[in-house]
Amino acid sequence: MSAKIPYKTYLTEEEMPKTWLNLKAFMKEQHEPFLNPATGKPCTAEELEQVFCKECVEQELNCTDKEIEIPEGIRNFYTNFRPSPLIRAYFLEKMLDTPAEIYYKFEGNNTSGSHKLNSAAAQAYYAKKQGLKSITTETGAGQWGTALAMAAAFYGLDLKVFMVKTSYEQKPYRKEVIRTYGADIIASPSDTTEAGRKILKEFPGTGGSLGCAIAEAVETAIKTPDCRYVLGSVLDHVLMHQSIIGLESKTALDKYGVTPDMVIGCMGGGSNYGGLIAPYMAEKLQGKNNIRFIGVEPASCPSMSRGKYAYDFCDSAKITPLAKMYTLGCEFMPSPDHAGGLRYHGMSPVLSKLYHDGYMEVRAVKQSEVFKAAEEFARCEGILPAPESSHAIKVAMDEAIKCKETGEKKVILFGLTGTGYFDLAAYKQFNEGTMKDYIPTEKDLERGFASLPSVGN
Amino acid sequence: MSAKIPYKTYLTEEEMPKTWLNLKAFMKEQHEPFLNPATGKPCTAEELEQVFCKECVEQELNCTDKEIEIPEGIRNFYTNFRPSPLIRAYFLEKMLDTPAEIYYKFEGNNTSGSHKLNSAAAQAYYAKKQGLKSITTETGAGQWGTALAMAAAFYGLDLKVFMVKTSYEQKPYRKEVIRTYGADIIASPSDTTEAGRKILKEFPGTGGSLGCAIAEAVETAIKTPDCRYVLGSVLDHVLMHQSIIGLESKTALDKYGVTPDMVIGCMGGGSNYGGLIAPYMAEKLQGKNNIRFIGVEPASCPSMSRGKYAYDFCDSAKITPLAKMYTLGCEFMPSPDHAGGLRYHGMSPVLSKLYHDGYMEVRAVKQSEVFKAAEEFARCEGILPAPESSHAIKVAMDEAIKCKETGEKKVILFGLTGTGYFDLAAYKQFNEGTMKDYIPTEKDLERGFASLPSVGN
Repeated sequence: MSAKIPYKTYLTEEEMPKTWLNLKAFMKEQHEPFLNPATGKPCTAEELEQVFCKECVEQELNCTDKEIEIPEGIRNFYTNFRPSPLIRAYFLEKMLDTPAEIYYKFEGNNTSGSHKLNSAAAQAYYAKKQGLKSITTETGAGQWGTALAMAAAFYGLDLKVFMVKTSYEQKPYRKEVIRTYGADIIASPSDTTEAGRKILKEFPGTGGSLGCAIAEAVETAIKTPDCRYVLGSVLDHVLMHQSIIGLESKTALDKYGVTPDMVIGCMGGGSNYGGLIAPYMAEKLQGKNNIRFIGVEPASCPSMSRGKYAYDFCDSAKITPLAKMYTLGCEFMPSPDHAGGLRYHGMSPVLSKLYHDGYMEVRAVKQSEVFKAAEEFARCEGILPAPESSHAIKVAMDEAIKCKETGEKKVILFGLTGTGYFDLAAYKQFNEGTMKDYIPTEKDLERGFASLPSVGN
Repeated sequence: MSAKIPYKTYLTEEEMPKTWLNLKAFMKEQHEPFLNPATGKPCTAEELEQVFCKECVEQELNCTDKEIEIPEGIRNFYTNFRPSPLIRAYFLEKMLDTPAEIYYKFEGNNTSGSHKLNSAAAQAYYAKKQGLKSITTETGAGQWGTALAMAAAFYGLDLKVFMVKTSYEQKPYRKEVIRTYGADIIASPSDTTEAGRKILKEFPGTGGSLGCAIAEAVETAIKTPDCRYVLGSVLDHVLMHQSIIGLESKTALDKYGVTPDMVIGCMGGGSNYGGLIAPYMAEKLQGKNNIRFIGVEPASCPSMSRGKYAYDFCDSAKITPLAKMYTLGCEFMPSPDHAGGLRYHGMSPVLSKLYHDGYMEVRAVKQSEVFKAAEEFARCEGILPAPESSHAIKVAMDEAIKCKETGEKKVILFGLTGTGYFDLAAYKQFNEGTMKDYIPTEKDLERGFASLPSVGN
């Protein structure tokens, strides 16, 4: 028993990372810069600082510092919900009867129910430090809005969350959590912004879109004194904040002398997976390991596996800068898959570059097989996983089953980013056998690619 | 920094308790025995074993063994969701600007969202060990049903959950979690039992009641081969299983040389509070400490503070044995307070006896002040608490504020039993200012007391 690796490993507060890892500083080549769509020129720090906090912009553009200090004020808030456990999936291994060793890093043990709080904490802290009074953001399903509301409450910032109107109406409880933490929540499109009023006039009765909610949040940030806009994924500084996931995982595994053979995670905008792989990928970039990195995306929105590596808008309203990334085109219409957090047309520029340069693999999976894996996982490991996170579970299980077939005792690490407590309508469909799988046709993809901008491409 | 007590203390798996503490073995006088309402005589083990698992009945009647081993098969499942953190409420202390030290034991970090899993694990394990094929239970709000579904899935038992029909219809997601873990969930009253059919005939279209659901679950257990009924609170063996909460808390606090001046918890059936106080109360019963024990109940259902110490049915359908306990009468109709888990007419016989003998205090609080405390807590400590648990938060905050006034540096330990993710309709009422407080009138109480049985009293 004494040599046995425990089910859960929690680092002590002293062992928690005091620096984030800036993966870009290890990359031989950087991804291409953000472009201003109007001028076709790289965005300057000044331009970005109109919208984002100064410190976040500095981090966004920093390609040289390998480590960036996590300020004490952020580490202080991190103790509110971190360290998160690294769990040895003994029960899952037993259920699969596999020789593989499976570990997962569980980021769902907080009220936001996901890893999003790692970056929300950092961005709210920097906003406060800059002397701002308020921040704005958008939210679709609500996880990001909840995380940012928690962080804003902690640091004493006002927050306006623009929530896509259909979600606002369909998910009254998500709205209520956000309100309980003291944030203002506004159904988008709203009459509080020009962008919102324009949409309402053109499409009365519309349920809104993420693109419109982003436009409203950005407009509000720009027009409100001492206010900035905050984004929950995709951008490099968000990935860097999430590196705490990988750093904690590695510190825990190093204690046992364990190095994973593969690191698996789901990818929407890419921030959690970018964070999970950070320390291991940094080593790989230095030729120090040969770990397989497998990012998982939904077959319904295969940004990386079937997308193009091109310049594109980060949002469907075409108001953001252009990023060079794998994309299905900002007007690609993903089907109503339940993994809302993965329904994004593009992908983190950092992960896109790594994939393009051959450092990682990607796998696309269908949602019905994802929910099957989720349910099997829940019944033996206890945790009810979020649909997004379950994409990683599915591929981890597939790999463990391959090990059973070959007899190889591989070490699998995957990211369990969140819980599915607010996704029970999806589980209901699965339990009732009415869940559908969506796979875009070549025609669907062509329509999406047709929306790629000419600037930059 | 090195001497600072961390925010969260997790025991290692080796440090986790290997025995439960049987508080009754420390009591100078035992509570009076369960009575068979038909005969007025104490229930025999044989009678109880018709309904409950053999090992649970033995534990129920055991007043002599101070410690009872937690079998490895249960400890194994406990690692799925334990140890739970003991949290130093630094953020709450700062917010209240109090000299008090506040600690809380958080039992909500699992999919059932509460402490219920501690006893569900034990009872499902013993059912499996006895060679049973299935178990039955009832659930109101759904936490207990979820916990038992998780445990039944883990041990490979069939489970039928009778869920009060109004909850079944109003809380489709609770139902869905239970189903995801593979349990059968049946709206009560149902046509699967005589009890259900009788009620349906008499009251077509009724929304059901907990009493009716219990009757259906017990009937099914008795009539099904290799099946027993399982209960989530009130009974002595359930309290004993929950002693792991107090044992872990004490082990963690002992590391820092900290002894609480008061231990606070909410009380519905009493199992979580009985478990939290167990090791400290055992010491007090031996004259080894002078800790104040403050149980908190809703003003809307003041079983202990305004109830009678008398024999009463454990359920409103009058099918259970009679227990000597503080009770408002089994026909007392609690108002629609949101802390569903505390809306119980009676109270654990063990806690009732301790209160009767002067070893503990009780405090009744109004729900609007409870939600105010809950929201303040959520904003600084991060966790969105369940309405039930928030009763303890309210009194802990009151006591901390008293310390501020007197300048005393008292140590407060309270139990945070669960999360409020499924209680957002209640938070909505609070956020919108439409929440009401209910306090029973003397007449309401008289009506309840009129339902006390003559047997035993």
